[in-house]
Amino acid sequence: MEQAILDYLKDKREIYLKELSEFLSIPSISALPDHKGDVQKAAEWTADALERIGMEQVKVYETKGHPVVYGEWLKAEGKPTILIYGHYDVQPVDPLHLWETPPFEAAIRDEKIYARGATDDKGQVFMHLKAVEAILQSTGTLPVNFKFCIEGEEEIGSPNLPTFVEENKELLAADVIVISDTGMLEKGKPAICYGLRGLCGLQIDVKGAKGDLHSGLFGGAIQNPIHALVQLVNSFHDANGKITVDGFYDRVQLLTDEEKQAYANLNISDESFKEQAGASELFGEEGFTTLERVWVRPTLEVNGIYGGFQGEGIKTVIPSEASAKITCRLVPDQDPDEIVSLLQKHIEKNKPEGVEVTVSLFDKGSPFVTPFDHPAIQAAGRVYEKVYGVPTSYTRMGGSIPIVAAFDQILKLPVVLMGFGLPDENFHAPNEHFHLENFDKGLDTLCYYWYELENSL
Amino acid sequence: MEQAILDYLKDKREIYLKELSEFLSIPSISALPDHKGDVQKAAEWTADALERIGMEQVKVYETKGHPVVYGEWLKAEGKPTILIYGHYDVQPVDPLHLWETPPFEAAIRDEKIYARGATDDKGQVFMHLKAVEAILQSTGTLPVNFKFCIEGEEEIGSPNLPTFVEENKELLAADVIVISDTGMLEKGKPAICYGLRGLCGLQIDVKGAKGDLHSGLFGGAIQNPIHALVQLVNSFHDANGKITVDGFYDRVQLLTDEEKQAYANLNISDESFKEQAGASELFGEEGFTTLERVWVRPTLEVNGIYGGFQGEGIKTVIPSEASAKITCRLVPDQDPDEIVSLLQKHIEKNKPEGVEVTVSLFDKGSPFVTPFDHPAIQAAGRVYEKVYGVPTSYTRMGGSIPIVAAFDQILKLPVVLMGFGLPDENFHAPNEHFHLENFDKGLDTLCYYWYELENSL
Repeated sequence: MEQAILDYLKDKREIYLKELSEFLSIPSISALPDHKGDVQKAAEWTADALERIGMEQVKVYETKGHPVVYGEWLKAEGKPTILIYGHYDVQPVDPLHLWETPPFEAAIRDEKIYARGATDDKGQVFMHLKAVEAILQSTGTLPVNFKFCIEGEEEIGSPNLPTFVEENKELLAADVIVISDTGMLEKGKPAICYGLRGLCGLQIDVKGAKGDLHSGLFGGAIQNPIHALVQLVNSFHDANGKITVDGFYDRVQLLTDEEKQAYANLNISDESFKEQAGASELFGEEGFTTLERVWVRPTLEVNGIYGGFQGEGIKTVIPSEASAKITCRLVPDQDPDEIVSLLQKHIEKNKPEGVEVTVSLFDKGSPFVTPFDHPAIQAAGRVYEKVYGVPTSYTRMGGSIPIVAAFDQILKLPVVLMGFGLPDENFHAPNEHFHLENFDKGLDTLCYYWYELENSL
Repeated sequence: MEQAILDYLKDKREIYLKELSEFLSIPSISALPDHKGDVQKAAEWTADALERIGMEQVKVYETKGHPVVYGEWLKAEGKPTILIYGHYDVQPVDPLHLWETPPFEAAIRDEKIYARGATDDKGQVFMHLKAVEAILQSTGTLPVNFKFCIEGEEEIGSPNLPTFVEENKELLAADVIVISDTGMLEKGKPAICYGLRGLCGLQIDVKGAKGDLHSGLFGGAIQNPIHALVQLVNSFHDANGKITVDGFYDRVQLLTDEEKQAYANLNISDESFKEQAGASELFGEEGFTTLERVWVRPTLEVNGIYGGFQGEGIKTVIPSEASAKITCRLVPDQDPDEIVSLLQKHIEKNKPEGVEVTVSLFDKGSPFVTPFDHPAIQAAGRVYEKVYGVPTSYTRMGGSIPIVAAFDQILKLPVVLMGFGLPDENFHAPNEHFHLENFDKGLDTLCYYWYELENSL
């Protein structure tokens, strides 16, 4: 890669930060109807920016919700095509009074840029635009082909993007998807997240008598819906934390020795995990390390339970109903639909006597993994190492980004999550910010990456 | 017993109903500080009434709360002494708009008198006054000795009565306590309730991490307080509804064959019980009938459970805490203190890993039973039968009336619950009323009872 590209990025730094500040000044809060116009404005800003850096076929695609912005450059004949996904919408900003500077007036302090969207995800989308601009301006061409797909509904769960992707498979066809919407392990430690857990969930509602009953007059002769619920919910785990739903673990992939070693090399101690969790003890499935438990083992968690009296003191009631909300984190190759059906069978089989049990389903998302040894993953690792001067960590995440799984499933493409954010940058919280060190190094890393991919795929 | 007494009661009926209406017009709501003056007024009204019917040593005893009214007549030398307990305070009246006539303006419709306190308990206290008056006026004397103890805090849990009783053991010494503050089985079916269940309870609070955690980032490696709570709560019962706390049943008295027969004779079908409960199925401890389950078997009920997310839909959180409220209904000879300590031991033994469990205790009340074959019980049965013309039912109640147990324990006296209310008379609800049929028959019954007791005790 030519030094001219890096020099160009250095030259333009001040201008870029100004442009980014302009992007960040648009309050494109997708969750709030009052900001619909702002979201549209951010879409147009993104389209203009794509035009300005030399993309073609730039278009703001309307959806049932906020639009998707597309642009491409496909002149690198015979070379791989990269689909870059990101989002121009942001989270709400309340509580506003906790912000040290206004959320939509970008402010730089201590080599960090503060604004809503600085790290999630306008800052990282902007870097992708500028890396491409720098190469194109410095060299007159690009080493690979690019397609940009920047949406405006990520913060509300991307309700319309899967349909858009499904309807535009050909438009979006590529060799690899690159997403910069996650984070590094910690400052100075680049990481490539190559796997996410999936999600499925359901609510169990247990109904007993028509109304609440006096526990003196009826207690002993009527099934208490709380007892029934507790019995049912307790049947999901054994005392060691293992999930007892028949077939639940059948499709769970085991780690390769190489991956086990990679996780061990991260040197994330149980002590630091405890501290991060604010917990005095850890607890989980036997036979696995903490990282394995959160990254590559599935879970079944009760996220909420309620029934009967919750006030101060005592109320001697047998409630008429009780409910639990349950979600599972899934790992490759578990299938959310299959798991939901196993859960339903388990509930049917373990339904306690004397009550009515109904189940309602929540949204689902598949687990995702790009093979650890995929050339696009390994190439990303090499360029991170080059720019940051330290070995790249290969990680997974216990959380779920449904849109990643959707891309994976609809387009059948490997996904590379190249995140430049840091865990403590307050994404979704007041005083969101982005470290300029990672803005600068991230731009260099992206430029190196495209050259590295030119011959790796 | 002389016919003159019954004639006297008939003659005075109109006057009595007027007097009762006056008593009912005092809004003596003990729970509301604004009505403190009214509660005092009702105490004075009661004291005046006791004076007027010929009681002596009448006094309004001040307590830390509302006063206790006392009066006695002890001239039946060598005859038994009856302690009559009742209360002159009433429940609040809201929602006021549901009352067909104002709660403190007694109205007679369809041979029922409507007003707050009509059945609970002013109406029944008033009957005791008038039965004594009728005998004394008609015959010039009384067949037994009487002590009246009428309190003003029953509807707020009688916080000061146990102390009053403890400090006035001698004043209150008697052979039997008679209380008319419960009900008959149904219209035309008199019942004597000779046993009540006791109560004890505790709250379990389970704490995990310091704050709620993301179930993706931490799920699998941290104990979920809901799981821990559910595991613990589930350990209290087996799948057949039997309580598995060590020693819980050790002191439980079994029914005599005579009692079993008496309950069977009540012909209360499971169908009618289901209907009353508004439940489509019954469920309870194996080997016992429904009535036995609610009257003479102890229970452990979760009255409330809560933790985590309770809103619409899904929130993928591992909550930092979860709680359950538990009460036990106790039967003779279980001791509330001992049961609480057994529960605490059980919790200690079954405490799940990875969380902190704390327990806080609720108020307690002992179970109570007057032996089924006690002469005062059997005498009550005979006089009911005489007046109502049908066999008397011998029942227990699954609920608890702590003050009954307190009398039983402090004064060591048999307690006879002679209730004249009906289950559908809306006590504690709008449009409380009292059937005049039971006002009339109840007065006769009480008069017969005192003559029956004269020679039974």
